[in-house]
Amino acid sequence: MREIDVIERIRARAPKTNLIRGIGDDCAVFRPRTGEDLVFTTDFLLESRHFERHTHRPADVGHKALARSLSDLAAMGSEPAFCLVSLAVPADIGSRWIDSFYTGLLALARKYQLALAGGDLARFNHIAVDVMCCGRVASGSAMLRSAAKPGEHVFVTGQLGTSALGFATQHGAAWRRHLHPQPRIEAGLTLRKRGVRACLDLSDGLSLDLHRLCLESHVGAELDAAQLPIARGASLEHALDGGEDYELLFTAPPSLKIPARIGQVPVTSIGTITRAHPGRVLLDGRQLEPHGFDHFANPDS
Amino acid sequence: MREIDVIERIRARAPKTNLIRGIGDDCAVFRPRTGEDLVFTTDFLLESRHFERHTHRPADVGHKALARSLSDLAAMGSEPAFCLVSLAVPADIGSRWIDSFYTGLLALARKYQLALAGGDLARFNHIAVDVMCCGRVASGSAMLRSAAKPGEHVFVTGQLGTSALGFATQHGAAWRRHLHPQPRIEAGLTLRKRGVRACLDLSDGLSLDLHRLCLESHVGAELDAAQLPIARGASLEHALDGGEDYELLFTAPPSLKIPARIGQVPVTSIGTITRAHPGRVLLDGRQLEPHGFDHFANPDS
Repeated sequence: MREIDVIERIRARAPKTNLIRGIGDDCAVFRPRTGEDLVFTTDFLLESRHFERHTHRPADVGHKALARSLSDLAAMGSEPAFCLVSLAVPADIGSRWIDSFYTGLLALARKYQLALAGGDLARFNHIAVDVMCCGRVASGSAMLRSAAKPGEHVFVTGQLGTSALGFATQHGAAWRRHLHPQPRIEAGLTLRKRGVRACLDLSDGLSLDLHRLCLESHVGAELDAAQLPIARGASLEHALDGGEDYELLFTAPPSLKIPARIGQVPVTSIGTITRAHPGRVLLDGRQLEPHGFDHFANPDS
Repeated sequence: MREIDVIERIRARAPKTNLIRGIGDDCAVFRPRTGEDLVFTTDFLLESRHFERHTHRPADVGHKALARSLSDLAAMGSEPAFCLVSLAVPADIGSRWIDSFYTGLLALARKYQLALAGGDLARFNHIAVDVMCCGRVASGSAMLRSAAKPGEHVFVTGQLGTSALGFATQHGAAWRRHLHPQPRIEAGLTLRKRGVRACLDLSDGLSLDLHRLCLESHVGAELDAAQLPIARGASLEHALDGGEDYELLFTAPPSLKIPARIGQVPVTSIGTITRAHPGRVLLDGRQLEPHGFDHFANPDS
């Protein structure tokens, strides 16, 4: 298997929307529109760390690697533009695995007219994927972690704890959701256009991610446990500290009308932004510790 | 060591030129100028694959990880804008290694006013780095692999085989050059502004990279062995098939005046583009096989 053959096969399948030049050169070439900002994110998906080869089929790995980055684009309220995919695989991984990986990734890319602009391909001792995504947004309108203000309401899309429940049980709808997270691109676009300014995606758990939003905005928050949209079968701990829900967490002033659903996705008010010490979050009046998943502090998980 | 502490330390040191929003949000936010194209590339640098921990100090790893991507920006003739850095390290790698890695990377970034816009940080069983770089170029002017035309002269910057010689001997100037490749950003900018249209960087060896340029341009090429600027001490094989020289290989019509040096970097004419079968390269009249380094075909190297 030669690099050039693998790349030619990927290239033949890669969507090229919006690109002046895609796969096949030293760099991809992209022409921005006037009056737009571009947003950029990159996320690892690592074997034995974020997935296991015996539980995740190659198409699942491709889907999830892209979904993680698309979820960050959703949090900014941006429209997906293109991605770069870096893939390293051990010598026992053949072209069939690689083709299936791209089948999963490209199915999700097509859903959002996302171009595959390039990437890298290498041999390594474990599977390592790094996906960079670029999104576009009207200048100055990207939703930020730092824009939450005291008095605003706190909302989440979808349900909480689904992915942690799925990971714990490894079967049923929650497990399928863990394997196939759905980035909230449409919800992010809708919220931004309605005037929402502060948002992030729930990748590491509500307790840690809300703490991060509050730190960046120099505010605190109070949550009402009874209002949390906990997934059926999930525990409060799954909902608070479970990672990989990839729902959107956002804030909005009381004057802004937030719909109860966006498409099929419910939107729930769960609390309020306060003037408390930056980063301090209360749940039913008691301090909520940021116990969500820290990829760096927990080397064994 | 918590992720947030590591990220805060990186954030405090990160250059922010040109960014609306850098490290600390779900995405970085970048505002393009009117009338420019953006170019994007990403490159892995993997332990035991592209470097060894016992020969490469952490600052060398940081330098090289960024230099590989900057070399791709140079090949397009682009001005560096920003980078995203994904870094995965084993549990026995502490904050000192990570700080030194960023010292090496940021020293090179500062040289080119390159912003560090974000990235990812994770635990893994081996060190894996993936660096995405974005460059800017006047609309429609990026140098491409596909733009070479029959009758044009073939040129290279610098000397050939230095990195392969350094890798073989592991001492002296060639070894230092192997550890610290210098991306040819100034040369790329100068060549593009002078009207050069076809270029790529020599990352996998002249024989393979020229073959690739010819394939993309649907042309052949003829090289004159006597003209090759072979590094002192290097063999013809080092010069033809050795990777990681990170020099620029470009073509120009005879009517275009190409300077003999750009800054301190010599520029040498080494052959001609022909109407031969696409990808076919002759050296002194005999077919030159593309033996350069294929990262994917040679799982053990």
